Amino acid sequence: MAEARDLFKEFKVQSVSEFFRRNAAMLGYTGKIRSLTTIIHEAVTNSLDACEEAGILPYIRVEIEELGKEHYKVIVEDNGPGIPEEYIPHVFGKMLAGTKAHRNIQSRGQQGIGISGAVMFAQITSGKATRVITSTGGEIVEAWVKIDVQKNEGKIVKKLKHPNPKGWRGTRIELEVKDVKYVRSKQGVYWYLKLTAIANPHAHIELVEPDGKLVVFPRSSEDIPEPPVEMKPHPKGVMVDDVYTMAHRSKRSSVRRFLVSEFSRISDKKVDELIKYITALRLIKSETNKEVKEKLYEKLVSGDVDSVLRAFGRKWKKELEKVAKIMDKSPEKLTWHEAEEIVEAFKLMKFLAPPTHGLRPIGEENIKKGLTSILKPEFVTAVTRAPRVYAGGIPFQVEVGLAYGGQIQGSEILRYANRVPLLFDAGSCVITSAVRSIDWKRYKIDSFDSAPLVVLVNVVSVHVPYTSTGKQSIADIDEIHNEIRLALMDAARRLSFYLGGKFRRMYQVKRRKTLEKYLPEIARSLHILTGEPEEKIKEYFLKLIESKIEVEEVSEVEAEEAEA
Amino acid sequence: MAEARDLFKEFKVQSVSEFFRRNAAMLGYTGKIRSLTTIIHEAVTNSLDACEEAGILPYIRVEIEELGKEHYKVIVEDNGPGIPEEYIPHVFGKMLAGTKAHRNIQSRGQQGIGISGAVMFAQITSGKATRVITSTGGEIVEAWVKIDVQKNEGKIVKKLKHPNPKGWRGTRIELEVKDVKYVRSKQGVYWYLKLTAIANPHAHIELVEPDGKLVVFPRSSEDIPEPPVEMKPHPKGVMVDDVYTMAHRSKRSSVRRFLVSEFSRISDKKVDELIKYITALRLIKSETNKEVKEKLYEKLVSGDVDSVLRAFGRKWKKELEKVAKIMDKSPEKLTWHEAEEIVEAFKLMKFLAPPTHGLRPIGEENIKKGLTSILKPEFVTAVTRAPRVYAGGIPFQVEVGLAYGGQIQGSEILRYANRVPLLFDAGSCVITSAVRSIDWKRYKIDSFDSAPLVVLVNVVSVHVPYTSTGKQSIADIDEIHNEIRLALMDAARRLSFYLGGKFRRMYQVKRRKTLEKYLPEIARSLHILTGEPEEKIKEYFLKLIESKIEVEEVSEVEAEEAEA
Repeated sequence: MAEARDLFKEFKVQSVSEFFRRNAAMLGYTGKIRSLTTIIHEAVTNSLDACEEAGILPYIRVEIEELGKEHYKVIVEDNGPGIPEEYIPHVFGKMLAGTKAHRNIQSRGQQGIGISGAVMFAQITSGKATRVITSTGGEIVEAWVKIDVQKNEGKIVKKLKHPNPKGWRGTRIELEVKDVKYVRSKQGVYWYLKLTAIANPHAHIELVEPDGKLVVFPRSSEDIPEPPVEMKPHPKGVMVDDVYTMAHRSKRSSVRRFLVSEFSRISDKKVDELIKYITALRLIKSETNKEVKEKLYEKLVSGDVDSVLRAFGRKWKKELEKVAKIMDKSPEKLTWHEAEEIVEAFKLMKFLAPPTHGLRPIGEENIKKGLTSILKPEFVTAVTRAPRVYAGGIPFQVEVGLAYGGQIQGSEILRYANRVPLLFDAGSCVITSAVRSIDWKRYKIDSFDSAPLVVLVNVVSVHVPYTSTGKQSIADIDEIHNEIRLALMDAARRLSFYLGGKFRRMYQVKRRKTLEKYLPEIARSLHILTGEPEEKIKEYFLKLIESKIEVEEVSEVEAEEAEA
Repeated sequence: MAEARDLFKEFKVQSVSEFFRRNAAMLGYTGKIRSLTTIIHEAVTNSLDACEEAGILPYIRVEIEELGKEHYKVIVEDNGPGIPEEYIPHVFGKMLAGTKAHRNIQSRGQQGIGISGAVMFAQITSGKATRVITSTGGEIVEAWVKIDVQKNEGKIVKKLKHPNPKGWRGTRIELEVKDVKYVRSKQGVYWYLKLTAIANPHAHIELVEPDGKLVVFPRSSEDIPEPPVEMKPHPKGVMVDDVYTMAHRSKRSSVRRFLVSEFSRISDKKVDELIKYITALRLIKSETNKEVKEKLYEKLVSGDVDSVLRAFGRKWKKELEKVAKIMDKSPEKLTWHEAEEIVEAFKLMKFLAPPTHGLRPIGEENIKKGLTSILKPEFVTAVTRAPRVYAGGIPFQVEVGLAYGGQIQGSEILRYANRVPLLFDAGSCVITSAVRSIDWKRYKIDSFDSAPLVVLVNVVSVHVPYTSTGKQSIADIDEIHNEIRLALMDAARRLSFYLGGKFRRMYQVKRRKTLEKYLPEIARSLHILTGEPEEKIKEYFLKLIESKIEVEEVSEVEAEEAEA
């Protein structure tokens, strides 16, 4: 029998990079096509986020050069704010380093793992460092970055500096990758960029494919999206661990100040109410008569905290003082149990709905512009719903676009979360199930699968509830499912109205043509019967047809107006 | 427009614990039922691995106490080797710390993330530290462990020591968890332990359910599985990055010594051959005549390296000397390009198949014992196939068990990887597709879905190719698919043989009963016609029936023997 100490002799600590080197699939590096898409996704996401935060209209160029069999050079260049020199090794070479994970902000990327994951994937397949060329407006820095996997640290293996007479700002990265494949499939780079362009009409995106072909997804909107802002968490949207962890990291002078400053919708008055609720909960728990206990709890749920307190006679004042003291102490002294009491009270209290000013939908106009410029449909419409809340306190917003006919062939569901296209795991996504749940026949779409119809759905939230670690599908949460359905039905009604007009027009045109076809014969027969000249009879009938069968020569523009 | 430097002001580094706190789903903490199963899985896996490494017959007790609504205490106790005191904070409180990730060893757990993930999940849902009671034979240590999430470090919040007069060895951990649910479903704890017991007949596993009910899965085999051994990687199973990384971490004196010592199937003679192959590849690459180049490459692929070298006249000796120098230098000086050359040559060279002595299947006898003791079927059989190789150099082994009838109701596929039950993502698993691909009708199973049939499949490998990060389904690799099918067909033939006998017997019994039913009437009629006494006629016919319709009173044991 082996001794424990011998068994532990080989105990070692791995770095997080080493872990993800062994588990690259966790970061989306699985399969030759998907791995290439993941690299592009990480780079383009960083570019779009950086431009948005800096208030710049993005100009993004992606180049994919084939260097050999399953061996490519990937270049992504943007006109973003650039990366200060001292941050280069961290941004590209250190996992879990970034600006966003600790802020409550809606953005595409979040973990500070994406682009360093791409650098690592390039490194473990080709052995090559990633070349970064960047400038924040001053001199241009050119650096080759590698990851020291054992230490999880970025290493600059070579660095050059260049003058920048024209004041160029932006970042260009070049990665050499093996074991990947460029294919124009629905899970490949081309499709990913096309979908990204649709959801980001303010971005100019271009792609040079390995065969040298240039594909341009031009900018169709000049509106710079407002930079996202941080939204403090709502009391209904936090777990005990959140309150406890936040309190222990807080620099505020008291629990009261911590609650008022670091949450949304909590005022000093609300803290006073919180004290009452915690006191009431404590007193109710101490009550031994089960019937009384239940009645008091019901009263508390109904919001009548004062009469619950009064029910305990003089006892409550003493308890209230105790609870009030919690609010005065330093937040790092908040105990787990107290955090539990706070969250329990939050659940019973009423608060204003969470702020939603930080949500950044694409917007109806921009969805229409994106769909029109990329897909060239004959009809387009979009619906951006008002923000809602799921899980009690997490704000989200749904928007939907429909594009019909024109150059569209067959149906397609374009899924997005915070404007990022979701290409995988469509089957388990709430967007798919919501779109499938619509009775499209009611909206003059006989068969969804064969209609020339593209459905775009974008779910916007600081916390998108993904089903899996790959972040490729959204969980089936009732509130989100319903919002998508409502948005879809609204948009589908407009489509149906348009199709109604269109089908009526097509029917009328057909009927008129049929009548006109028989007109010469009828005219001839009547001429023989009545002796009237054929031309006169024809003219008469033509006028009759025109007056009876009015062909509505409404333009697409009018049709769109009609739907509004 | 914002300046880059302002945007980077909030740049921070997260710890790996912080990352997994935010992404607990990556570790299997998703859904109330699955989260509880994940905790049990992590604890039981650690216990089984520890017992196996130490050569102990495992005795594992799981207790689940309900403390409140969706609030449980989980206790897992084993008789393993125990944990030395100084390792307690690392084992339970530090992610990515462990003994196995850096070794090529077949084991259930691997990442050094599992049990600390469970400790963290308990902590972020209940706020409570995990209580650990352990002894390696000396005094008993009782410690309460928490994770400092920001630092990814274990913290002992309280520690006691107790005398150990009876010399107890083992580990008991107690976790308090909220937001989970105990349900007796197919993805719950009961089912997980039942499946674990089937695949580990050498383990005694018992479970105290929240209602106090004790469920015992008794040990049915006294064989202690041999402890797993490390298997060095095979030259055909490594990527460039593996060779490069291994070389740079190696302490050997030369690249030659590194290759011979740290790979399987590489001898000094093989290194000499490798030198020739690399030389030949270099020379072929330098050849400008395309036709000659292709011919020489073909010759090299066919294995005739010597005549390729000779084709270059005297040139080759000089090049060979250069390549030979690579083998003499320190492994940490190996360049990426040289590692590429080595792997390219490995692909063309012939090696003995990888060693498989480190693979640890359950074994046919043990599968039969496990299935019989837990499921009480009327028939059971098992097939353990010889080890095979996938992806050129990664050894794996498949085994299959079939249990039919008896107390089994309905069909079931029990999937395992290295003896660990896979409960989720069945749809995308090669085991499911292989079982479904069998034409069960050919084996006297009319409808697989309604037959009283349990199919167990265990895939054993140092590198099980999981499809997803949740490690709940195995990728559809041809070699593995085929092996599962072959094993299944072999086992199914035995089942079919048994059922053949069984159905024949049932048919005979039925026929005899029919005849016997009409016997009194026939006897009476013949008695009237012939005058012979009824009893005599009856007796005569009974003898006739018995001689014609032989009812095989073969026992189950005989049937099993017959199949061998």
